[in-house]
Amino acid sequence: MTYPDVFQGFGVGDAKKWSTPTLVEYAPKPLDSNDVDIEIEYCGICSSDLHTIKGEWGQLRRDDLVVGHEIVGTVVAVGPKVSSLVVGQRVGVGAQNLACLNCNRCQDNNEHYCITKNVSTYNKKFPNHDYFSQGGYASHHRCHEYFAFPIPDEIESKYAAPLLCGGLTVYSPLKRSGCGLNTTIGVIGIGGLGHMAIMLAKAMGAEVYAFSRSSAKKDEAIKMGADHFIATGESENWNQELTDKFDMILNCASYISGITLNSYLSILKVDKFFVNVGLPCAGDVYEFSPFTTISNAAGIKSSKLGSRKEVLELFELCAKHNIKPWIEEIPINGKNLSNALIRLDKGDVRYRFVLTNFKQFFSS
Amino acid sequence: MTYPDVFQGFGVGDAKKWSTPTLVEYAPKPLDSNDVDIEIEYCGICSSDLHTIKGEWGQLRRDDLVVGHEIVGTVVAVGPKVSSLVVGQRVGVGAQNLACLNCNRCQDNNEHYCITKNVSTYNKKFPNHDYFSQGGYASHHRCHEYFAFPIPDEIESKYAAPLLCGGLTVYSPLKRSGCGLNTTIGVIGIGGLGHMAIMLAKAMGAEVYAFSRSSAKKDEAIKMGADHFIATGESENWNQELTDKFDMILNCASYISGITLNSYLSILKVDKFFVNVGLPCAGDVYEFSPFTTISNAAGIKSSKLGSRKEVLELFELCAKHNIKPWIEEIPINGKNLSNALIRLDKGDVRYRFVLTNFKQFFSS
Repeated sequence: MTYPDVFQGFGVGDAKKWSTPTLVEYAPKPLDSNDVDIEIEYCGICSSDLHTIKGEWGQLRRDDLVVGHEIVGTVVAVGPKVSSLVVGQRVGVGAQNLACLNCNRCQDNNEHYCITKNVSTYNKKFPNHDYFSQGGYASHHRCHEYFAFPIPDEIESKYAAPLLCGGLTVYSPLKRSGCGLNTTIGVIGIGGLGHMAIMLAKAMGAEVYAFSRSSAKKDEAIKMGADHFIATGESENWNQELTDKFDMILNCASYISGITLNSYLSILKVDKFFVNVGLPCAGDVYEFSPFTTISNAAGIKSSKLGSRKEVLELFELCAKHNIKPWIEEIPINGKNLSNALIRLDKGDVRYRFVLTNFKQFFSS
Repeated sequence: MTYPDVFQGFGVGDAKKWSTPTLVEYAPKPLDSNDVDIEIEYCGICSSDLHTIKGEWGQLRRDDLVVGHEIVGTVVAVGPKVSSLVVGQRVGVGAQNLACLNCNRCQDNNEHYCITKNVSTYNKKFPNHDYFSQGGYASHHRCHEYFAFPIPDEIESKYAAPLLCGGLTVYSPLKRSGCGLNTTIGVIGIGGLGHMAIMLAKAMGAEVYAFSRSSAKKDEAIKMGADHFIATGESENWNQELTDKFDMILNCASYISGITLNSYLSILKVDKFFVNVGLPCAGDVYEFSPFTTISNAAGIKSSKLGSRKEVLELFELCAKHNIKPWIEEIPINGKNLSNALIRLDKGDVRYRFVLTNFKQFFSS
């Protein structure tokens, strides 16, 4: 059997074997009337994929779990009620596959925080089916049309892929913080998320500071668009000259231990925030002192993904400013995927892997 | 010697003797051209006073330190450049005595977060004088006219006093959070700050939840204007029915150990905040988990005091809605003051002590 009855992908069933996904076949989720089927052509590799298959964010819910949520491909079939997309259209899918689209949050462009029917692109049960979602290291993907976004012609597919999770994850808090002309934004962690945050904040008009522990990525951060680079591990008092400077500090690092939170909080303007988007391991916490933040009413918060509205804005911004994530293309096959995951686990990626050659691989 | 050369007040020089302030005489700060002299008639007793004289917020900077920063009195003299006040006018002074009034923060109605010349009403050095500020348990007070606020006729002095620190401290974050019609506000800790927060949030149009550890203050919280009362110590799952309910949760409690932060964060709407105004001891911290707040992008922040603009708005609001803090009047003298401080230290106050009878005491 082949598509539409069976999808193929690279699955993991045991967190101990996360570095060797194997080729699997599985039934797509039952078709709902607003679903579209996408033949996948590209898929970014996000740190979330790695956290999930390593079991760091909870249990693997399938023994053939396919991750990947930076999907670009072509619509090859549409459900009977689909109205926004047609067969042949190029679309992207990010980290969300379903929301109720009716609640206050959904109605307020916060469908990514929908409580009742929020389904992530992989490893999450659909409310109306006995089926756990499957991601984009695969031949095809099926999801609700609302979560499949048309991509402007100006953006090449391989550059669109990393925008769908990583790009959106940093764009949404940048936008919501008021990032723009006459604002100053700090970006901590020059990795998959951070490098896009620098480019986007710069394109939005902000003055951008990149923060990293060492100077190793200084030249590259400047090339991405950072106006300033601070190596926090190379000077004890790196924050002293920066008081009252920042409209937001976006923490893209996926660790907590190296982050001197109080130093970052001390350099925010009044009523501004240190925003976490890089997720640490589940139990890790920051220590927040009410006392040390009363001089500027600073705060700490989290942000997750973004809305459809923000995806479309992000695409427009990237098309207008010709923003291209820094990627390394990986033709998909078992060996290449395994190598890429192992390298990502070591931090050996500058700055995003994008899986390619899906058609050649899955149709052969 | 008497006023204007000498002020009288109740001072503390040794944190171990915080409960027995003694009558002292001291020189006023040297007169600056925008200073006014106020003959004090009322002064609220704020928890900050207690923290300060107990040495919990750092060193006592004078051996005759007079605290008190909820001052109401009459202008009795004005410096040569004073333009906003005249002799005979009734004014209030809160917890701030000076700011530069020129920096970005000052220009943006954030003079309470001024970095360069921020002088608290007591125990803080003036930048231009070798003088540490002295508060309102005293016969007179001298400060810059910007920090002496005209009080509307509708508000009795004894009710105006607690608004000047406590009231402003809760009004500012309520206002900045958008508190009003169709919003829901949570208030933790039904004490000096909390009881005013309930009244103010209600007057601003919000639906108000009061949170306390036990039901002891339930009837009074409802009388203050709370629509709902939650005794968090009497049910393990008190937060379960409150998901996605709150536009802000204002923490007026001055402890951290009893606060289940994650439970409060879980009931905020998207992109909303848990705001601390009740200050704990200097070293106390909250544990903030980026992971547990990604379902609603919740955050935690601090807030301190408020701006002159907000004081004047607060007075208008209280005049319009006839808001009266719940006070117990304490005629000022050594014995009464000592008893009041000891009772405040035990939490035995419902809900604000206001010192009275200043003229009778200091002119006798």
